[in-house]
Amino acid sequence: MSDRRTEILRAATRVISRRGVRGLRVAELATEAGVSAALIYYHFTDRAGILRETLEFIGERADRYTTEQDPATAGDPRAELSQALLLELQDTPEVRENSTAWGELRASAVFDPELREDLARATHTWVHEIAYLLGQADPTGTAPAHASSAERLTALLEGLSVRWLSGSIPLEHARMLLAEAIEAELPPRGR
Amino acid sequence: MSDRRTEILRAATRVISRRGVRGLRVAELATEAGVSAALIYYHFTDRAGILRETLEFIGERADRYTTEQDPATAGDPRAELSQALLLELQDTPEVRENSTAWGELRASAVFDPELREDLARATHTWVHEIAYLLGQADPTGTAPAHASSAERLTALLEGLSVRWLSGSIPLEHARMLLAEAIEAELPPRGR
Repeated sequence: MSDRRTEILRAATRVISRRGVRGLRVAELATEAGVSAALIYYHFTDRAGILRETLEFIGERADRYTTEQDPATAGDPRAELSQALLLELQDTPEVRENSTAWGELRASAVFDPELREDLARATHTWVHEIAYLLGQADPTGTAPAHASSAERLTALLEGLSVRWLSGSIPLEHARMLLAEAIEAELPPRGR
Repeated sequence: MSDRRTEILRAATRVISRRGVRGLRVAELATEAGVSAALIYYHFTDRAGILRETLEFIGERADRYTTEQDPATAGDPRAELSQALLLELQDTPEVRENSTAWGELRASAVFDPELREDLARATHTWVHEIAYLLGQADPTGTAPAHASSAERLTALLEGLSVRWLSGSIPLEHARMLLAEAIEAELPPRGR
């Protein structure tokens, strides 16, 4: 992806996390990204195109910060699974911005049918990745059981993330609730 | 509560579920409720007051439709617990409107610190009610364990509800995922 394109998507994520999807106007995004509106239209065609690619950008960025290899977890599928989920709950500017923008795109799709198909696709991609890690951590389980667990864990994570971001629970408590849910979805350790 | 007051809160829930919290203006709410803006200010002081009482109104309405006595569940605490959670996932105009408005208030609190304290209070009330039902369904468990389970189940329900409303999963599938989570939080049946 060209640097200019990435810079526009990074700016779109920032704007959405600051003022919401409904606050995203192309003129404003152009100012934020330091490019012309014409260049934005050239790369993304229209507002729907910007939102679609921003969803992908957010997903790829989350992939990166949830799979940064912690040497302690290398080769331990259970630890890799926990990390992939728990690293979505971190108080760093990048994670906060990414989670705020994702939650806002989710909430906006309730009102904006145009967003729904892309959001459903991005959700499937995420569920699929977590189901894969569940399969590695619990190889005797079935694929549909892992898929259901992955849907529950990611939906719970979305619910906990917006509770944290909206000030209803502290971050460490959200992490603890999620860690317990991960344990409950897996067979007991050492079996 | 006076009929006029209730009518204003009902109208506020409708407006929020149709156009979002950010679309709620007092003048528009007055038109929707068929009252004067002055009467709204008289009852609720300001916009923050309207939102605070709308949160309560939504909670009380959900209480009503999740505790309608199904003769089959009377006296069965496990069934009452399942019902209290699963009846939040119903495709009726009332539940859809209530869930949309609640999800929107949750999402808006990420951007609007003024909403947070009231939302956290309403969340605690809900968690507390579910923890009570868990205590009835699982009397040998501990209160903190029930409180954690209640937080997980309600956060999962919020996550599933917005996935349903945003078109990422069908309603029946959301219900199935939630029903399995309820089972996982309780000791095995017949123990």
